[in-house]
Amino acid sequence: MDNTTRQQLVATTSRLLEAQGYHGTGLSQIIRESGAPRGSLYYYFPDGKEELAAAAIAEQGARMRDFTAQLLNEVADPVAAVDRVLVGLIEHFSASQYCGGAPLAAVALETAAHNPRLRTACTAAYNDMIDVFTAKLRAGGYPPTRAMRLATVIVAGIEGAVILSRTQQSTAPLALLREEVSILLRCDNTSPQAGNTVAHR
Amino acid sequence: MDNTTRQQLVATTSRLLEAQGYHGTGLSQIIRESGAPRGSLYYYFPDGKEELAAAAIAEQGARMRDFTAQLLNEVADPVAAVDRVLVGLIEHFSASQYCGGAPLAAVALETAAHNPRLRTACTAAYNDMIDVFTAKLRAGGYPPTRAMRLATVIVAGIEGAVILSRTQQSTAPLALLREEVSILLRCDNTSPQAGNTVAHR
Repeated sequence: MDNTTRQQLVATTSRLLEAQGYHGTGLSQIIRESGAPRGSLYYYFPDGKEELAAAAIAEQGARMRDFTAQLLNEVADPVAAVDRVLVGLIEHFSASQYCGGAPLAAVALETAAHNPRLRTACTAAYNDMIDVFTAKLRAGGYPPTRAMRLATVIVAGIEGAVILSRTQQSTAPLALLREEVSILLRCDNTSPQAGNTVAHR
Repeated sequence: MDNTTRQQLVATTSRLLEAQGYHGTGLSQIIRESGAPRGSLYYYFPDGKEELAAAAIAEQGARMRDFTAQLLNEVADPVAAVDRVLVGLIEHFSASQYCGGAPLAAVALETAAHNPRLRTACTAAYNDMIDVFTAKLRAGGYPPTRAMRLATVIVAGIEGAVILSRTQQSTAPLALLREEVSILLRCDNTSPQAGNTVAHR
């Protein structure tokens, strides 16, 4: 057996987890849609579905991180760079017929309470995303604490806006998020009307 | 059969959908955990699981809307009122052992692409939430377009922050969202550094 079979199994699992969640995805469907022989699944993933899902989550996390980092690196200004990511996400979401863009959200929600292994894999993937935004914002002059806070809220906003956009079958919620994130990042929250006593930026 | 049986079925379904999603929730488990006789399920819900889930989504939507509206009404100032909702949500999330707070997110993600009936039910529930925030922000002086945009982003932020908070088993992402939402709502985005040409507030 070669590594291509393993990759086919992981790629098929990633796609099915995004579209229908962990519980909705059975091993039979993964084998059928990947075209991999049944024996290969337990050869590469002795623990079965859970181990395969953990590998798929890690791969999706790496893909989200690389997609984000690449777009952030295209633009020097941090506000424009974050905007570039949101534009790229909206394009990806449209191209996916309104079902892509949050590959881990469903599996994260289903497994957080009951499956420590998959919960940990999701946490690591989301933390990678948050770290990529944080690094860009810090490099762009935001203080570390604020950069991390903004990065977390941007990732949360993306996940939630994809949920709304999927249910509406529309890019509108993502487009609204894009506008408000831009306002938030440009906001001078050290001014009195920002209501903060600590200067962040 | 009385209405209590119907209510037990819907309440049990609501709880299970939140914790494990649509595909992870079987009719046998709903019947077992609700204590309702099997016959009652098809008496009240002839279409079975899908109809029951639609009723559960509508009920959860009404509960989210009422929870939000009640907290928003406790405070006159719109910024403080939205903050009150987020504090209430953080309290609810903590009390639920880090598994509550986004009752529709999992079912919305799983069914958006394939189940128009449940997708429509989720859209209606989310729109109710957005409308409640929009009304409060408009009453507090935000122009209609901006109020709707902020309301959508607040609801998206809540859904996404709950995903991150569930995976981290921590209230931290919700607390970070609370801080940034407060900054965003206070931000004077008509100033030049806000980078907007249209005056919103």
